[in-house]
Order: sequence, then structure tokens, then C-alpha cells
Amino acid sequence: MIFFKNDYGAGAHPHVFQALAEHNLMPADSYSHDEYSVAVTEMIRALTGQAEAHVHFIAGGTLTNLVCLAAFLRPYEAVIAADSAHICVHETGAIEATGHKILSVPAVDGKVLPAEIDKVVAFHETDQMVLPKVVYISDTTEMGAVYTKAELQALRACCDAHGLYLYIDGARLAMALGSEYNDLSLQDIASLADAFYVGGTKCGALFGEMVVILNEALKPHFRFIMRQHGALFAKGMLLGLQFKALLQDDLYTRLGSMADAWGQKLAAGLKAKGYSFAYTPVSNMIFPIVTTAQAEALAKHVLFEKWLDNPDGTQTIRLVTSWMTKQEDIDGLLQYM
Amino acid sequence: MIFFKNDYGAGAHPHVFQALAEHNLMPADSYSHDEYSVAVTEMIRALTGQAEAHVHFIAGGTLTNLVCLAAFLRPYEAVIAADSAHICVHETGAIEATGHKILSVPAVDGKVLPAEIDKVVAFHETDQMVLPKVVYISDTTEMGAVYTKAELQALRACCDAHGLYLYIDGARLAMALGSEYNDLSLQDIASLADAFYVGGTKCGALFGEMVVILNEALKPHFRFIMRQHGALFAKGMLLGLQFKALLQDDLYTRLGSMADAWGQKLAAGLKAKGYSFAYTPVSNMIFPIVTTAQAEALAKHVLFEKWLDNPDGTQTIRLVTSWMTKQEDIDGLLQYM
Amino acid sequence: MIFFKNDYGAGAHPHVFQALAEHNLMPADSYSHDEYSVAVTEMIRALTGQAEAHVHFIAGGTLTNLVCLAAFLRPYEAVIAADSAHICVHETGAIEATGHKILSVPAVDGKVLPAEIDKVVAFHETDQMVLPKVVYISDTTEMGAVYTKAELQALRACCDAHGLYLYIDGARLAMALGSEYNDLSLQDIASLADAFYVGGTKCGALFGEMVVILNEALKPHFRFIMRQHGALFAKGMLLGLQFKALLQDDLYTRLGSMADAWGQKLAAGLKAKGYSFAYTPVSNMIFPIVTTAQAEALAKHVLFEKWLDNPDGTQTIRLVTSWMTKQEDIDGLLQYM
Amino acid sequence: MIFFKNDYGAGAHPHVFQALAEHNLMPADSYSHDEYSVAVTEMIRALTGQAEAHVHFIAGGTLTNLVCLAAFLRPYEAVIAADSAHICVHETGAIEATGHKILSVPAVDGKVLPAEIDKVVAFHETDQMVLPKVVYISDTTEMGAVYTKAELQALRACCDAHGLYLYIDGARLAMALGSEYNDLSLQDIASLADAFYVGGTKCGALFGEMVVILNEALKPHFRFIMRQHGALFAKGMLLGLQFKALLQDDLYTRLGSMADAWGQKLAAGLKAKGYSFAYTPVSNMIFPIVTTAQAEALAKHVLFEKWLDNPDGTQTIRLVTSWMTKQEDIDGLLQYM
Repeated sequence: MIFFKNDYGAGAHPHVFQALAEHNLMPADSYSHDEYSVAVTEMIRALTGQAEAHVHFIAGGTLTNLVCLAAFLRPYEAVIAADSAHICVHETGAIEATGHKILSVPAVDGKVLPAEIDKVVAFHETDQMVLPKVVYISDTTEMGAVYTKAELQALRACCDAHGLYLYIDGARLAMALGSEYNDLSLQDIASLADAFYVGGTKCGALFGEMVVILNEALKPHFRFIMRQHGALFAKGMLLGLQFKALLQDDLYTRLGSMADAWGQKLAAGLKAKGYSFAYTPVSNMIFPIVTTAQAEALAKHVLFEKWLDNPDGTQTIRLVTSWMTKQEDIDGLLQYM
Repeated sequence: MIFFKNDYGAGAHPHVFQALAEHNLMPADSYSHDEYSVAVTEMIRALTGQAEAHVHFIAGGTLTNLVCLAAFLRPYEAVIAADSAHICVHETGAIEATGHKILSVPAVDGKVLPAEIDKVVAFHETDQMVLPKVVYISDTTEMGAVYTKAELQALRACCDAHGLYLYIDGARLAMALGSEYNDLSLQDIASLADAFYVGGTKCGALFGEMVVILNEALKPHFRFIMRQHGALFAKGMLLGLQFKALLQDDLYTRLGSMADAWGQKLAAGLKAKGYSFAYTPVSNMIFPIVTTAQAEALAKHVLFEKWLDNPDGTQTIRLVTSWMTKQEDIDGLLQYM
Repeated sequence: MIFFKNDYGAGAHPHVFQALAEHNLMPADSYSHDEYSVAVTEMIRALTGQAEAHVHFIAGGTLTNLVCLAAFLRPYEAVIAADSAHICVHETGAIEATGHKILSVPAVDGKVLPAEIDKVVAFHETDQMVLPKVVYISDTTEMGAVYTKAELQALRACCDAHGLYLYIDGARLAMALGSEYNDLSLQDIASLADAFYVGGTKCGALFGEMVVILNEALKPHFRFIMRQHGALFAKGMLLGLQFKALLQDDLYTRLGSMADAWGQKLAAGLKAKGYSFAYTPVSNMIFPIVTTAQAEALAKHVLFEKWLDNPDGTQTIRLVTSWMTKQEDIDGLLQYM
Repeated sequence: MIFFKNDYGAGAHPHVFQALAEHNLMPADSYSHDEYSVAVTEMIRALTGQAEAHVHFIAGGTLTNLVCLAAFLRPYEAVIAADSAHICVHETGAIEATGHKILSVPAVDGKVLPAEIDKVVAFHETDQMVLPKVVYISDTTEMGAVYTKAELQALRACCDAHGLYLYIDGARLAMALGSEYNDLSLQDIASLADAFYVGGTKCGALFGEMVVILNEALKPHFRFIMRQHGALFAKGMLLGLQFKALLQDDLYTRLGSMADAWGQKLAAGLKAKGYSFAYTPVSNMIFPIVTTAQAEALAKHVLFEKWLDNPDGTQTIRLVTSWMTKQEDIDGLLQYM
């Protein structure tokens, strides 16, 4: 079977794995007090130009989102997110389980628009309603779209106008930064967001995500919230080591770029064969529209996810590439479609 | 100022107040172990034909909703509700604060449609998503609409097909039962719902709501959940006394009917003057469409709530009648509109 | 049966009931925006000498405690309380249900000692542990004890030393203020506590408690938390009206004093008959030690609560007086003991 | 510096690491649907003799505890645990953050006694109190003690008598099973507990814990709760692979045994030098009593944790061995003490 199911099917990039192997039997301080984690904080501060940034490591994406939102929100405050957002749909109510409402808004290719934020804020004007306080976006989005610098600046301005925090879920930040459609740098992101996370699980790490907090108001006691949710990793050095390897020589973005390049090759191939797409293909997640018969035939040879049943009887499917994708995978897939 | 702001502005119906007065200085057992509360349980069992119904008393509507849903749902389960539902919009995230997601659906005049439930259930098919388990409706709805027997039966069938509980918020159940558009009896409601509440605050009581639980699965340990949320009233006799008075000679429904009758007079008067309505007026909440100038002029003489800014620049306002409304209030209002 | 079971068995003091009766059919603004609630705020500011005090009304004691602690604590923060405290034992985990740990300490007659707070604070020094932030005490305590001014000042100093808030559960504040052993004024309490509540349910009100917040840090968005927990009372005027009546001519403290006086008469009678007490009787809750046979005999004529089985085979029982207690109740009780 | 600080300072046993290395670049199904995880379930069923056991994998211990208790308890239910238990003291209120009260009991060397459970159950008899439902123990305990078969059978009988679940935190189950003082087999544990977890982080794994659920009532929808708390690991294969390696040829218990053997050598050496111990040394955590001067001197050469300040001015310190400890570490330590 050819694997296009997701970008977290296998382990770590060899450089990352090598780092784990080299230090495997060397004890280090626990709970992210180790030297590698400390070094990564310094690297991130240099890379983002944010000398006071706080850096934390968490083992997975849902855990990261729920810890951040639990930390950033007071009980009566809510988070605004796209109706397709991971926290809205695919985390089994993790955010609500921390007591917070998600105010979902219609989105375009998974992107949140300032005008929708304006509407939500205008509507929530009394103490009978929750108080919107965080805007959650993901880059790339659930549909693989990439925010432009102008879009992110507009969201920042909108958040500033309403006193909202901007939090970016970067589960696939590598693929955002690595996309040819991207014009945002890591510095841009760090200067525009109040907090964001750099996703390792889906790009190069064995596992793990890295939270970067910029806004002073969001920094105090974050580790308490982490531990309360079981998110302060005992062997924090494992996470420090991996992100150190990923940040060296910009491995992280380069892997994202590779994933995107395979995605673009795949999209080009499908386009050439006449397929259309539910969302414009710009990163490593490609959403072709197929007939049920095509989907069934494909499923005999390829691992992928069905995304949506379309009203006209067709299906949207999701094909995901990664830095590990090979030309033969693309060729194989195209042969069966 | 003429009062059309809501139906909970004043105190209790004289019969109810009289009951409180008569027993004011007579100590009774606490936490609803008093004789009046016990008597009301028997009355409800007789009135509904449900000999095993459990009855509980809670001081207010939001508290009732959050206690019921906290009791009926397991942590990963969610409640389906109209996007205009009180629990969705006007309870400051009370349900989410108990850890549960609300799956909101588009509704017609605040009514939930089985087809929307079907869609939600079909979409939530994996452990990445919450599990829909309760359907929340209110009768009358937030827009004053009244469910027909056929509609409620269809919802019941839909819930049965999907293994869902049906819970009815009866904050204005009196006005539903009392409406000339209603064909549901209390017995019908008790045979179709798994649990519902009978709202006293908005119709005749000084304060208080009465929960009726029919489904065996929802009965155990309900008092524990009540107490955990501060909803087990120390002087439960106050609530027992009031509902005893309200159920006697069907006072409750008769008061709802009076509220509705005033609402219909008001609607007829407005219609005669050429006003149109955002929602068909069938109970005690009337939603005429007015110009901004009209709204401003009216606000000098009448207490009411603005409901919505309409896209065409007009406003929808909400006028609410109660059993206490007087002909002179109607006349006065019509004079200013 | 003679009633010594508790001090919340019956309704309201006639003056309070009269206020409710007079305004029963007069609609007022809802959710504590009514004129009576506003007037009470002014009265409290005058009585406490705290011109910026915030005043809120909640229907019951457990609800008040959980709302206050949910509002005052961040998720990782905890409340220190006596191991006999109402929030520890008798609220079905209401505080934990809002996500917060209670750090219970051994107490003397239900009183929290600064030395115990010091120990708890010293122990909780890392992010593996919750952060103590509020000290919860009740006056009178669960055992009917009364804090002295010196004791409360010592607690205040201890809280200041550790950066803790001091919150006083005043379910029986009337009986504390009214006790002959008390040397605290309402001004003292308001100047020493960060927040406290004045309990109406157990002394003169039909129902209801009044929260007074002094510390600026605890004031913002309190109503949001109230509403989220179903504690913002729709007919707030009912609560405003009652506390207005209770504060007039110091009715509230006078009723507490009456309750205490009956308690002291009862205690004197029991002492004369040779009974000893589990806790020194200083207010309206009296805890004589009896044999099982005595308890059983008494239960045939008197309503009371068993408090504890003692290791020596005897029992501690609880007898509670109120402003409604009569000489014949005392005489009757003494005759059966 | 010689490392005796804990047993989770370094990475994985070479066999475990090798398994990760071999499959690193081979994509597998996600969220524990991979073949390795499935194989481990079969291994556990064979090893425990429990053909219907459910097996789940979670990245860390606090996360495991909070997920299990959130899954096993209804909102008003509580867990009984030793006052020294990890969930009581060292998880920053993680259990309370899921809404549940911990009923802490005095314990002997961290062991919960049936008599204490009896007392807690007897005390919690009304709906004013939480309902005890789970007994949490850890084996080894926080003090390194090991439960005997007779003790665990007595706890089981006690739980059965009261309708309680028995849950075992096996963060150091390897060291319990591997201790010369142990007479429990994995089969015994699986037949006596309702659920338990096998800790990998502290014995041989790079990271990860394995939950085994025996009681049918606790199995449904466990994955929903996992995901809601961010505990369903995307790359579940990493956990499956590791536990497959650990269970092969009983590597897990053998590593625990090695850790214990080093602990016993260390204890013997200290005893020979005249040190006494706060708790009888039976596994890999050794708690010698030292003077402050001794502790300070030792800290220049050895990494360890201070455990307690003793009333007599001495200190109890904690020294932890692991399968990685070497003779030279022991020799070095003894030289400095």
C-alpha cells in the first residue's frame, strides 16, 4: 500500500533520531530543565529576534492546544476559531473539557477572516454571553492553506482593536513556512502572534511540539498549567534534543519545504489528469474531488482519508505528503487515479 | 414606563404568595425532604401519568440546565441545540463550564429539526469527535414558537433512532401549554421527553423551576449533581409550596394562557397598525420589526429589549407579556407605536 | 416534634416577608439592576466604610462559595480551609468540580490557625504542586465558634505575608456578629477580608446570600462567573428587597443575637443538668455529648442532627437555635434530656 | 556528578531503542491502530491470563492518572488515596482539575490500609458528600514500598465490600515486580485490580505508560476520554513498539529487578556505614537519614533529592537507582557519605 494517509505515520528524520541515539544513555535533568531544552530556548530567541520569548515542550498537538487555551483564558472567556478548526471538530471536545466555549466562525479554506471576528465581538456585548479573548488560527490550515503576511497583519490589527490574543496552532508550521506561497518568516510570526506552537510530530520529530510565548501576560505559571494537564514531560530532554536538531541548519523548514514540494508534484500530476480540487493546493495536503468508484478503486492500493461527501455525489479525499514521500509514491498514486 | 421587557419582572401570583405567607413561620425538613415537595411529586406523577417520575426543584433556569446536562452527559458526550438556544448564547458558557460541547444547529423560529439532528449524528462518527447524546429543545422557543405534537413525536423518533436523550427546557412551558397553537398535553410531554423542566420563574412563581425525570437511566444520583453545583436548595419547602399552589386547579397553565392571550392581543393590535413580525406570534413573546426611529421613540415610554439589527436597517424588538399584563399596558403601547 | 435541627427550617422574618409582599406585583429591572439591589450596595458601603465595595446576591451558600472560589482562583491555585469546613465536607465536591484543590488543615473548633497556613505554604514550593492562593474561613465556624478580632488580624497578617486572599463564609455571620463572645464589627470584617458573604438563608431572609468584594483584584467580571454557574438571579429584586429589610435598623445582627441568646440559654440548661460539650458553646449551635440511649430517647420528641460517634461510645449531637426559637422549645428539650 | 536523582533521567534500554530505530522510517497506522500496539494487547492478554483485557498507551504518568480517573468516575464520585500519593501532592491538582475530589487517608510507607478505606466509606453517607468510588494505590509506593499479595487481596476484598474500583498506578511496577520482597505476579495484579498501568518511563522505555483495563464497566469510550485530554498519541506505534520490546523475554521485570538490586546494594552499604532509613529499603528508592552537613557535602558530588526536613534537625534524602546504575556509582556515593 502506498502511504498518503497523513504526515505523522513514521518516526523521526535521521538527524533527529541520531541526536536521540547519541544521548540515549546519558542522564539529564528532568522536566525541561535539561541543557538541550535551555539551548533551544536560546536558539528560538535568536531565530525570532524575541529575546524574552518563553519556550515549552509538549508531547502532542491536542495536549498543546488545550494547555495553551486553559492557560490563556479566564473561565468566562472564549476562543474564536474557524468552524473547520482542529479544536472545533477533531479533539473530542478537549477545549470545552477545560471549561471554555469555542465561538466558531465560517472560514475560507480554513482561514479566519477579521470581518468574522468583528461580528463575533460585536455580538458578545453583555454578561449573559462569554467574552471572546483568543483568536485561534492554524498555519497551514486544516485544508492546507497558508496565511499571507498581509492576512496575518490584518488579524493582528483586528485582535489589537478588540483586545484579543492571537494564538497560532503550528502543527504544520513547517509546511506553512516551506510553501512557495508563503511570505511569512519565523520572525514575522513571532512578532504578530501572542503565542504559537512549532509542530514537530508532523515534520521531522519522533514526536513533540514546542510552544513559544511572546506576550508577557501569558507567561506566568504556564508550567503549572502544563503539569496539571499531564503535559510537563518527565524526560524533557527528549524534546529539547529533537528541536535542537530540527532548528540546526533550518532542518525544520527544509523538511516542510520537501513535504510541500511533493504535494505540489502530486497536485500537478492530478491536474494534468483532469482532477479538480476542493481547496487550492499550496502545501502538503491535497484535496482532489473523485467519484465514489474512483475512491474505492484507489483504496485498494493507497492509504488515504475520505474528507467529505459532496452534494453532487462525488467525494473529496485527502492526500498528504511528507518529507519522506518518494517519487515512486507519486508515480504509483497517479497510476491508480 | 410600560413594562414589556420580560415575563420575570415581578413576584409571584397571589395564590402562590399566599401559600408562602401561610407557611412562612413553620419549620419544615430541608433540602426538599419537606411534605410540600413530596406532595408535588405525587401531583406530577398523577398529572403526567408517570408513576415513577422523579421530581426536583432548582432556583433558576440556567442552574437547572447546567445541572441537568452535567448529570445526563458523560465527559465526552455533547448536547445538540438550536443555534439560538438559551444554553448556546445567553448563559455565559455555563454548559461548556461543565465540560461539555454544544453542537449548535440551524433552527426555524428556534425549533430544532430532526433532519439537522441526523446530520450532526452522521458527522460525528469517530473518537476524534464528541459523541452527541442529548437533544436540548425549549418550548416555547427563544422566539416564542410552540412545538406541535407531531413535531415532538418526530423528534422523539429521531432521538430513539440515534440513542439520544430528549431534554425540554420549559422555562416558558406554561406559555407553550397555554397557547392556542399548542396541541401537546403535559402527559404528552412526559411520555415523549426523557426529562424536562417546568419553569416557575417566568410564570406565577416567586422563583423556581421543577425538573421532571422520566428515563430511569437519568435518575440515579441526580441530587449529588445538584448539590455539587449549589442547586440543592436548603429551604426546599419554598419551592415545594410554590409548585403545589401552581399545580392546583391548573393555575400554572391558566397563567400561561393569560400571558399568551395578552401577547395575541398585542400582536393583533400591531398587525392592525401594519407591523410585520420577525417570527409568527403564537405565544407571549412578540417580535415586531420597527425602524430605528420608532424604536427610539418607543423607548421613551416602554421598557422592552432590542432583539436584532436587521440587514435592511430596521430592528427587530422583543415585547413580552405576562399574566400580569393589563389592557391599559396594551393600549398604552399601541399608542406609542 | 420540637425543632432544633437547623436554623434554616422556616421562612423569613416578618419584616423581610412584608417587604416582599409590598413589592410583589411591581415589576423591576432584572439580574440585580433593580433599585433595591442598588440601594443595598449603598447601605453596605456606608455600613462597612468601604466606598468601593462591590455587592452581589446569590440564592444559596454552596453556590456562593463555588462562585467566589471559581472567580478568585486561577486553575492551578488552591484554597486552604479547615478540615471540617463546609466546602471540604458538605458540598459534594463543589469546589473540586470547579477544578480547584482544597488544602485542608487541622483546625481548632473549626478555626484555621496561621501556623497551619504557614506550613501549607512552606510545603507548596514547586510547580509539581498547586499554588495556595485563598484562605477560606467561616464565622461562625461549623462548630459554632466565633473568631476574635485578634485572631482575624493574625490571619490577615499571615495572608499578607504569603500573598493570599482571605475569604469569609458568613452563612452564620449574624450569629458571629451577635455573639457575646464577638468583638468584631462589620467594618472590621470588611477591612480585614478580601471578600466575604453575609448569609441571609440562616438568619432572617426567605433565602439568599450577599457577597461583598473589597479587593480590587477580585472585582472584574464577577457577574460573568456568577451567570456561568447559574448564580445570577433573574429576579434579583427579591434578594435586594430582603437584604434592604435585613440591614434596616440592624435587624440582621439583632436576629443573630436572638439566635445566640437562645443557644446560650439552652447551653446553660444542659450544663446545669450535667452535660458537657464537644465545643465551647458561644453562638447558636450547641454540641452536647450524650449516650446512645439518650440520643434515641430524645429523637422521639426533638428534631436534631447526630454530629459524631465518639470513640468512647458516646455521641456528639448538634442542637441549633434561631431567632424563631421559643422558651417552650428550650423547656421542652430540657425536659427530654 | 553521580546521578541518583531519579530513575527517568536517561533514555531507553538498548533493546527498546533498537526497536524504535528499526521501524523509524516505516509508516504505520496512527492512534494505536498500528500492528505493534495490537501485538502488545495480545501479549498482555497472554501474560495476564485476561483474554478480554483492554490495553491503551499514554505518553506520561500524570496524564495516565488523570485520564483513568476522569474515565472511571462520575462527577460526584471521588478517589481514595494515600496522603502521600503522587496524585495528592505532586500533580499540581490534575485530578481536581478534572472535577474530582481526592479523599486522602493516612498511609504506612505510602500503602493504603483497608481500615482507612472503611472509615472513609462509613463517613461519606449522604448526598451532601462526594461518593467514594475508586481506590488509588501505587506499587511501588512513593516511598518505594511493595504491596504483598495478602495486602492486595485484602484491598480487593475491601473494595468489593464497598463497591469500589481498585486502580493501581504502576509507574514503578517493574521495581515492584522485580523486588525480592514481592510475591505478586502480573497475573495476580490483573486479577485483583480493575485497572492498572505499567510504567515505561521509569523502567526501560524512552517514554510511555500502558494502561490495562480489566473491569468491563470501565472499558467503554476510554479512547474518547484519552483524546479529550490530549492523551491519544498520534504516533501510537512508538508506544506499541517500545512495550513490545519491553515485554519480550520479560525485559521489563528484569530491568526492574536490576534497579532494585542496585538499590539493595546501596542500602546495604549505607547500613554498614551506620545510616538508618526513613522507610525500609525494599526496591530502588532509598531514603537515608542524614545531617544537614552531610547533605550539603554530598550535594557537591551527587545529584539527589531532599525528601523531608525531620523534626530533630536531620534530613531524609532520596536516592534512586535504575537499571543503568553502575557499581562505580554506588562506590562513589558511599565514598562521599
